[in-house]
Amino acid sequence: MDGLPTSYTQRQIFFNPTPVILVTGVLLAMLGIAMLIPALIDHAAGNQNWSIFAISALVTGGAGGAMFLATRGSAKALTTRQAFVMTVMVWIMLSAFGALPFYWSGYVPTYTDAFFESISGLTTTGATVMSGLDEMPPGILLWRGILQWLGGLGIIVMAVSVLPMLQIGGMQLFKVEAFETPEKILPRATQISGFITLIFLNLTGLCMLAYLMAGMSFLDAIVHAMTTVATGGFSNHDESIGYFDSAAVDMIAMVFMIIGSLPFLLYVQALQGQSKPLFKDSQVRTFLLLLAGLILFAWTVEEAVGVHNGHEALRVAAVNVTSILTGTGYASAAYDGWGPVAVGFFFFIMFIGGCAGSTSCGIKIFRFQVLFQNLRQHTARILYPNGIFTQRFNDRPISEDVTLAVMSFFFLYLLTFAVSASALAAAGVDTLTALSGAGSAISNVGPGLGAVIGPAGNYQPLGDLPKWILSITMLVGRLELFTVLVMLSPRFWRA
Amino acid sequence: MDGLPTSYTQRQIFFNPTPVILVTGVLLAMLGIAMLIPALIDHAAGNQNWSIFAISALVTGGAGGAMFLATRGSAKALTTRQAFVMTVMVWIMLSAFGALPFYWSGYVPTYTDAFFESISGLTTTGATVMSGLDEMPPGILLWRGILQWLGGLGIIVMAVSVLPMLQIGGMQLFKVEAFETPEKILPRATQISGFITLIFLNLTGLCMLAYLMAGMSFLDAIVHAMTTVATGGFSNHDESIGYFDSAAVDMIAMVFMIIGSLPFLLYVQALQGQSKPLFKDSQVRTFLLLLAGLILFAWTVEEAVGVHNGHEALRVAAVNVTSILTGTGYASAAYDGWGPVAVGFFFFIMFIGGCAGSTSCGIKIFRFQVLFQNLRQHTARILYPNGIFTQRFNDRPISEDVTLAVMSFFFLYLLTFAVSASALAAAGVDTLTALSGAGSAISNVGPGLGAVIGPAGNYQPLGDLPKWILSITMLVGRLELFTVLVMLSPRFWRA
Repeated sequence: MDGLPTSYTQRQIFFNPTPVILVTGVLLAMLGIAMLIPALIDHAAGNQNWSIFAISALVTGGAGGAMFLATRGSAKALTTRQAFVMTVMVWIMLSAFGALPFYWSGYVPTYTDAFFESISGLTTTGATVMSGLDEMPPGILLWRGILQWLGGLGIIVMAVSVLPMLQIGGMQLFKVEAFETPEKILPRATQISGFITLIFLNLTGLCMLAYLMAGMSFLDAIVHAMTTVATGGFSNHDESIGYFDSAAVDMIAMVFMIIGSLPFLLYVQALQGQSKPLFKDSQVRTFLLLLAGLILFAWTVEEAVGVHNGHEALRVAAVNVTSILTGTGYASAAYDGWGPVAVGFFFFIMFIGGCAGSTSCGIKIFRFQVLFQNLRQHTARILYPNGIFTQRFNDRPISEDVTLAVMSFFFLYLLTFAVSASALAAAGVDTLTALSGAGSAISNVGPGLGAVIGPAGNYQPLGDLPKWILSITMLVGRLELFTVLVMLSPRFWRA
Repeated sequence: MDGLPTSYTQRQIFFNPTPVILVTGVLLAMLGIAMLIPALIDHAAGNQNWSIFAISALVTGGAGGAMFLATRGSAKALTTRQAFVMTVMVWIMLSAFGALPFYWSGYVPTYTDAFFESISGLTTTGATVMSGLDEMPPGILLWRGILQWLGGLGIIVMAVSVLPMLQIGGMQLFKVEAFETPEKILPRATQISGFITLIFLNLTGLCMLAYLMAGMSFLDAIVHAMTTVATGGFSNHDESIGYFDSAAVDMIAMVFMIIGSLPFLLYVQALQGQSKPLFKDSQVRTFLLLLAGLILFAWTVEEAVGVHNGHEALRVAAVNVTSILTGTGYASAAYDGWGPVAVGFFFFIMFIGGCAGSTSCGIKIFRFQVLFQNLRQHTARILYPNGIFTQRFNDRPISEDVTLAVMSFFFLYLLTFAVSASALAAAGVDTLTALSGAGSAISNVGPGLGAVIGPAGNYQPLGDLPKWILSITMLVGRLELFTVLVMLSPRFWRA
C-alpha cells in the first residue's frame, strides 16, 4: 500500500502503438474524404484551387489508408496509456494533414501558418493568420468551417466517452454508468458518437437554415453554421460576424453558441427520454445565469464609456460576451478599445468557458461550481472545526477525489497559462499580446486583446516561434491539459 | 451529521465584543507609547514636528487606555469568532491611529494618504505615497520604520499562535502541539510572543550593526534594519536602497530579507535546542533553491537585454528578486524597463512569497509544495486509477483536509486578486497599474509595475478610491484572506 499503486494490470513491458496507428489511420482517411467536399465546391465554382484539395485528399487519404492497412486486425481494446497517446496523436496528425490545403494553395506564406490555422480550426479556437478572407475561394473558407466542425464533434465525443474514463480533472463526475472499464472505451464510443453526430448534424442544419433566413448567402450560412455550433469562431469575413451588421444574425449566433456550450449528453439523454429536463441541470442553470449577468455588466460598461447605447449596446454586449465566454471567438466590435475595465473583463471571462461535454473550452462551469463549493465548505469548517460537511453536485454528493482533481486542474490551468504567456514574452511578444494570446489559446477562444491579436486584429504578424507556442497551448487546452501533460511524467513511460 | 456541524459549543446568542475591545485597547496604548520614540528623536533634533508625535501619542494612548479601562476584568478566553473579529479590528484600529502623525504633520495632503501609508506600514507592504523622503524630519522616517517593525512582529506572532488554531488555508500544518483549543490561544500567544520578540529584536540589532558597518548613518541603519527584518521595504530615500549604491548594503539587505522570510518557529525551536536543523526543513530548502533559480533567471534576462553585465547584473538581480519574492519591496533598479519578459517575471514572482510563520506574505512556499504534490498525485492517479497515494510534507503524511484548505486558499487568492484588479480598473486606473497594484497589495510587496507605481514610482498620483481599494487589499492579503472574508459569511453572524 505505502504510496505504491495496487494495480499493475494495465502495464506492459513495451508500448504497443498498433491500435493508436489504426485509429489515427481511420480518422486520417476520413479527413481525406472530407477534403473532397471543398474540392467539389471549388471545381463547381470553376476555381483552380480545386486541384489542391484533390491532391491533399489523395495524400491524406493515402497516408491514413496505409496506416490502417498496416495495422488492421490488431487489438481493438485500448489500454489507458494507448488511449492517451491516441488522443494526442489524432489531434496532431489531423492538424498536420489538415494544414496541407492551406499551405499548397499559397494563401498562407509558410507551413507554420498553415499548421496554426489548421490546429486553430480543429481545436475550435478560431484564431486566424489569414486575412483578405472576403476574396478567398469558397473551398478554403469551407475547409476552415469543416475543420472546426469536425474538431467540435470530435471533442464532444472525446469528452463524453474517453475523458470520464481517464478521470481527468474531475471529469469522472460525468461518467456514464454504462461505461465501466477502459477496455470498453472504443465500442461504447462508437455507439454514443452515433447519437452525438446525429444531434450535431441536426443542430448545424437548423443553424444554417436560420442564417439563410436572416439573409446570409449559402456559403456564409453553411460555414458560419459549422463554426457557430462548434463554438469555433472562424468567419468568412475579416470583420467577423460584424460584417453582417444584422440583429437577426447576432441573435441566431448567440442562440447556437449557447446550444453548443451545453452538455451534449443531456441532449442524448433527452432523445432517449430518460433524462430530467435540461434546465434543471445545475451546470446549465449556472452557465445561463452567469452569461446573463456578464452581458448586463458589459452593457453597463458600454453605457458608462459611451461607445454604444440602448438596444445597440445590449446587442453588442450579448453577442460578444456570449462569443468569448463560450470560446467561440466571433467579434462584432473592438471591445478592447472600451477602456481598462473592458480589457480586464474580457481577459477574465476568456478563462471561464461553457459546460463539460460541450464544444466549448476553458476551465468550465462545473469546475467553478466545485471550487466555490469547496470555498464555502472551508469557510464553514473554519467556523465549526468539528463540523462535517458534504459537497454536492447536481444533488448528488461528490467525493473528495473529485474536488482534489478539479483543484489540480485549476492549478495546472493557471500554471500552463503562466508558462505559455512567459514563453510568448520571451519570444519577444508584448505583454498584453502575450497574456491575452496565451489565455485565448489555452481556452480555445480565438481573438486576444490589443492592437495585434485583438478582435479587430490577426495572428499573422506574430513570428514563427510565438505561433508554435500558441499551437501547443491550443492543443494542451483543448485536450484538458492532463491528456497531454501526463506524457511528460516519467511514470508514463516506465514499463 | 447530514451536512450540519456537530459542534455548537462555540456559539453564543449575542456576540460579546468586550475581549476584542480589551485586546485592541492594550495594543493601541502600546502604539501610543511607541509614538513617544519619534517624538523624543524629533525633539532632540530640534524639529518642531515632535509636538505632532506627542499629541498623536496622547490621543492614541488615551483611546487605548479608555478601551482597556472600560473592559478590564472581562473574560480572557476568546471564542473563535472573537479571535477573528479581534485580529481584523486590531489591524484596522492600529492603522487608523498610526496614520495620525502623517496626517497632522501635513507631510501627506489627506487622511486617505495617511491611512494608506500607515496600513502599508503595518501590513509590511511598503507601498508609499510620500516623496521627498530625503528631506523629511527623522521622526516621520522613524515612525514609518516602527510601523513596519511592529507589523512584522505582529504578523509572526499571529501566524504562529492564532492562525494554526483557526485552520486557515492549510495553516494547521504548523499547529504547535502544545496549543490545543482556541480557549488557550491568548495565554500561549503571550508565552510564544516573548520568544519571538526577543529573536526579532536581536535580528534587528544585528542588521542595524551590519548596516552601520557598511557606512549607513545611524538613522538610516535603524530604519532600514527595522524595515528589512520585517520584509517591509520602507526606505528613508526616494531612490530606495539604490540610493546607497553599495554592494555591502545590498548583501546585508539580502541576507536579512531572507532571514525575515524563514519560519520563525524554527528559530524558537532552535533556541530551545529541540529542533532539527533549519536547512533540513523542506519549506526552507525549497524557498532557498527557488530564490537561487529566480536570481539566475533575472541575471540572464539582464544580460540578454543588455541593461547590466557581470557582477553588477548579478548584484542587481539578487537584491531586487529577493526583495520582490520576500515581499519586502526595496528596489535598486527600474526592472520594469527591462522588457516584457522582466515585467511578466516580476509580476508572477510577486505572488509566491516566503515561508509560513515569517514576516513575508504572498501565497507562500508550503502552499505551492502542497499544490505541486497534489498535481503529481493526480497525474499518478490518472495512470493508476486504483493506486493509493499519500501526500507528505516534511516527511509527515498530510490529510486531505489540509490539501483542500490550501487549494481553497489558492483559489480565493486569485479571486481576491481579480476582484481587486477589476475594482482598480473600474476606478479608472490603467491596466498594468491595476494588475500589478492589486498583486503587489495582496502579496504585501510594495512597488507595482509601470510608470506610476513601478519601482521608480510612487502611489501618490492615484485617486482616493484606488488608495482605499489597495488599503483593503493589503489588509485582506496580510490576514491570510479567510480571517477577513469569513466575516462576509452569513454563517459567521448567525447566532
